[in-house]
Amino acid sequence: MPARPSRQLVALPNPHPGRDYQVRCSTPEFTCVCPRTGQPDFATVTIVYVPGDSIVELKSLKLYLWSFRDEGTFHEDVTNRVLDDLVAAVAPRRITVTTEWLVRGGISTTVEATHPA
Amino acid sequence: MPARPSRQLVALPNPHPGRDYQVRCSTPEFTCVCPRTGQPDFATVTIVYVPGDSIVELKSLKLYLWSFRDEGTFHEDVTNRVLDDLVAAVAPRRITVTTEWLVRGGISTTVEATHPA
Amino acid sequence: MPARPSRQLVALPNPHPGRDYQVRCSTPEFTCVCPRTGQPDFATVTIVYVPGDSIVELKSLKLYLWSFRDEGTFHEDVTNRVLDDLVAAVAPRRITVTTEWLVRGGISTTVEATHPA
Amino acid sequence: MPARPSRQLVALPNPHPGRDYQVRCSTPEFTCVCPRTGQPDFATVTIVYVPGDSIVELKSLKLYLWSFRDEGTFHEDVTNRVLDDLVAAVAPRRITVTTEWLVRGGISTTVEATHPA
Amino acid sequence: MPARPSRQLVALPNPHPGRDYQVRCSTPEFTCVCPRTGQPDFATVTIVYVPGDSIVELKSLKLYLWSFRDEGTFHEDVTNRVLDDLVAAVAPRRITVTTEWLVRGGISTTVEATHPA
Amino acid sequence: MPARPSRQLVALPNPHPGRDYQVRCSTPEFTCVCPRTGQPDFATVTIVYVPGDSIVELKSLKLYLWSFRDEGTFHEDVTNRVLDDLVAAVAPRRITVTTEWLVRGGISTTVEATHPA
Amino acid sequence: MPARPSRQLVALPNPHPGRDYQVRCSTPEFTCVCPRTGQPDFATVTIVYVPGDSIVELKSLKLYLWSFRDEGTFHEDVTNRVLDDLVAAVAPRRITVTTEWLVRGGISTTVEATHPA
Amino acid sequence: MPARPSRQLVALPNPHPGRDYQVRCSTPEFTCVCPRTGQPDFATVTIVYVPGDSIVELKSLKLYLWSFRDEGTFHEDVTNRVLDDLVAAVAPRRITVTTEWLVRGGISTTVEATHPA
Amino acid sequence: MPARPSRQLVALPNPHPGRDYQVRCSTPEFTCVCPRTGQPDFATVTIVYVPGDSIVELKSLKLYLWSFRDEGTFHEDVTNRVLDDLVAAVAPRRITVTTEWLVRGGISTTVEATHPA
Amino acid sequence: MPARPSRQLVALPNPHPGRDYQVRCSTPEFTCVCPRTGQPDFATVTIVYVPGDSIVELKSLKLYLWSFRDEGTFHEDVTNRVLDDLVAAVAPRRITVTTEWLVRGGISTTVEATHPA
Repeated sequence: MPARPSRQLVALPNPHPGRDYQVRCSTPEFTCVCPRTGQPDFATVTIVYVPGDSIVELKSLKLYLWSFRDEGTFHEDVTNRVLDDLVAAVAPRRITVTTEWLVRGGISTTVEATHPA
Repeated sequence: MPARPSRQLVALPNPHPGRDYQVRCSTPEFTCVCPRTGQPDFATVTIVYVPGDSIVELKSLKLYLWSFRDEGTFHEDVTNRVLDDLVAAVAPRRITVTTEWLVRGGISTTVEATHPA
Repeated sequence: MPARPSRQLVALPNPHPGRDYQVRCSTPEFTCVCPRTGQPDFATVTIVYVPGDSIVELKSLKLYLWSFRDEGTFHEDVTNRVLDDLVAAVAPRRITVTTEWLVRGGISTTVEATHPA
Repeated sequence: MPARPSRQLVALPNPHPGRDYQVRCSTPEFTCVCPRTGQPDFATVTIVYVPGDSIVELKSLKLYLWSFRDEGTFHEDVTNRVLDDLVAAVAPRRITVTTEWLVRGGISTTVEATHPA
Repeated sequence: MPARPSRQLVALPNPHPGRDYQVRCSTPEFTCVCPRTGQPDFATVTIVYVPGDSIVELKSLKLYLWSFRDEGTFHEDVTNRVLDDLVAAVAPRRITVTTEWLVRGGISTTVEATHPA
Repeated sequence: MPARPSRQLVALPNPHPGRDYQVRCSTPEFTCVCPRTGQPDFATVTIVYVPGDSIVELKSLKLYLWSFRDEGTFHEDVTNRVLDDLVAAVAPRRITVTTEWLVRGGISTTVEATHPA
Repeated sequence: MPARPSRQLVALPNPHPGRDYQVRCSTPEFTCVCPRTGQPDFATVTIVYVPGDSIVELKSLKLYLWSFRDEGTFHEDVTNRVLDDLVAAVAPRRITVTTEWLVRGGISTTVEATHPA
Repeated sequence: MPARPSRQLVALPNPHPGRDYQVRCSTPEFTCVCPRTGQPDFATVTIVYVPGDSIVELKSLKLYLWSFRDEGTFHEDVTNRVLDDLVAAVAPRRITVTTEWLVRGGISTTVEATHPA
Repeated sequence: MPARPSRQLVALPNPHPGRDYQVRCSTPEFTCVCPRTGQPDFATVTIVYVPGDSIVELKSLKLYLWSFRDEGTFHEDVTNRVLDDLVAAVAPRRITVTTEWLVRGGISTTVEATHPA
Repeated sequence: MPARPSRQLVALPNPHPGRDYQVRCSTPEFTCVCPRTGQPDFATVTIVYVPGDSIVELKSLKLYLWSFRDEGTFHEDVTNRVLDDLVAAVAPRRITVTTEWLVRGGISTTVEATHPA
């Protein structure tokens, strides 16, 4: 089993801090584990943010999302935690995190959280 | 014939009650019976809500929707009843229930109800 | 040739009149006749309304739409007439009728009317 | 009600009879009547043929398909009759007629007939 | 609970028995029950056949498919049984039955059986 | 070469002038000529308007659009001219003209103009 | 009105004549004129060929297709003529020309011709 | 980290062994690890087979595919190993395994293996 | 290697400066180089603007976008620089530049900047 | 300007040489230069092959395709050269290379070559 990657998000200086502009990062490669059944869950994660003084370094974002691979966590919880971690790391002016989960029990679930609310 | 499943929706504590965020659950696996003809009807049910102190437990939601399988009910009525039951069970800050019904008499019908209106 | 069906829309009591909710009925099975050329025209008709004290009975809606089959009428006119007839029959709180016509002279036409405007 | 149009298919000389080539005509504007219920049925009709000495004149094809508007006929029957009429009118080297009918009783039906079989 | 509908498929005389042609009937309104868990399963059923002396009457097909609503049966089994019943009822020259099941355990399953093999 | 068709848009009386409703006409059959290179350009033209006392007669609209076939004109210019001509001809309460041009130099261009702005 | 472009297709040496490989050229920018009504017709033209000793120079192909802009010609005829002209110009080992015409009289027409048949 | 699930595929008796029919199972929930970089890879796995005396039990298939979650393996290798394991477990008359991998280095890779070849 | 094209955007007089209207230019043909790895990056660039006294000449826009082909630049930076250059060249009343980048590290990135913010 | 990457394709041992199976690699990230105009061209490249004793190492394939970035080459030529280079590097049992080029002069071009023919 591969070593668990770092959960450290890296912030880079925003090259155009004087303007409100929007960055969108999306990946279908998110997986974690259901805390009840221990079975894998799969989601597409989409992050839309308006940077403040920093932007997210893309490779650290990839490693950060990978770090949930073996962690048991509920859909609603992990979405809000990713939001909180990004707010802490890059202090965006506005940010939305959306997770779209593959079907469980015939039901597709999507969770979307925004900061500031 | 399988026993009728429970119509009891289970509420779990919202892990992030301090933030308004949105949960969307959708399933194409809803069926009930036309109260006039006794024939089966089929719908996709979509629930979008902003949790208050509780979130809906997914397995109980599945069983709840299943419980309409043998019940005769009109499109407009069942949509509002699902909305009322979810409001009673988890007291969301805002919730919309949408039902998209398969073709009857050449006509596709969709019903959408929101609380608070 | 089949007898012309009734143009009588049937109103049923709204089972949830205390809430503003939305019903959408759509059918690709509308045909009438061009009043100039006598040639058939084809359209998809979509009705979106918020019921007041009544909802439209689905079978009467089907027969009502069928009743235009041999009638010569312009796109703009028939759209507004269907809107007027539905307002008269079920007194919705808000209603939009949209007709999407198949290509004539290389041009696709759509007409959309709302009450109250 | 408009007069019933002619059911006469017009044949034009094939401008390139020395080569086997294929013509495809398709229209979503076909309607006839269910011989049991008297209710309208709707279909997309597609004709694919390799012309012999003649091609079908397009306007006559349109009028021909229109001529079924008030006729009661089963899906399987009308498909084979259109095929037979086209074979009689333009003697194609090979021809397939396909009718794709809108949903009845929750079921979509398509009929496809070829000559020679 | 509605009464279980008849499982009797009705055969009508083929109006064009002299020609091999193809009929395709498809419906997303099939549901039965998992024999292990007792939970509902949902499928789209598609039937493609070349009629012999008979065609399937559409309303009886609808009732026939409806009759599985409360029956516990595996995907592979019910597909073959529908095929067998249609062969027995209308003796087609060639027939394929396909069932496309909604996701279970993250897996989508399709079963396709043909007679004669 | 065919004669240049009339550029005269015909206005018909609006059958329902008491209500604000919307008409949308769209055609992929627009072509003109690049005023620099003399090469043909192709566009889909879409007109969305709320009629005042008049509606546009469809055949005159088709001939009007056809009349640009041999004219050299820039994308931005012709879009605004079509808008001006329609305003002059039928005095709509509100109108938007959109032209979507096929790729030139690897770039797809769309122009959209509205009156009143 | 722009001058009529040359109808001369230019052949370039095939850089890999020792191998049968396939080239496909497709454009939605074809227009000619209906020989009966004088009205413009529009088509997507697709050419698929296996080159022999020559390939078609792309700019000459564009000018060649443009040259039909003011010519009155039937769908079936022009498709075969384009095929003949390409055979004459570049002597491909195998070639198919397909024209997909926009709707006329509610009917979409496609013509496809191949050499050698 | 969850315990590694069993890699034991379970065979059930084929309920209709007298007929060649086809079963298709597909899931977007496959993940393993790149043996070079240790980074996760993601794929959609599709299995199409004609059962012999056995069919694959669906839950064991889900657990089997899950068991690769922490294993380092190349795309080409794991595809063939899944094929071999299924051949060993249920001895199908014919089987194809396809894996469609998400983008790596800008390249999408798909591997497809069939037994017997 | 081709010479680096000019980065000079050409402004043409706006033919209809009295009206606020919108122009949209989009191309999938943008490529530059990652300043960290030196590897090529690919994006679709979309520019939507309301012209003031000038419009962008299309050929100069193509050459301008081409000029980034060998330049190392981050996604966020180049998007804002294209916006700044267009503002400087044609002084639009309002403009948005969007870049949609192909997948890197499993993540798709889009950047969108608007002036005035 | 970045240094030109190596054009050396790396062959890895085929882990399952005893079976004919198929690998498909596809990327929208191919660009080269038109040998006539010096302008960039863009294509999606798709490689489908049945490996013999070797498979293509993915990273070397990426670098190989990148190496054409500054080279002037015709569509038909580069497609056959990529095919020849892959045949030389990994000696596949069967291989097809397809290039789908973005629009030039209103025409989309695709080239497809196979070895052995």
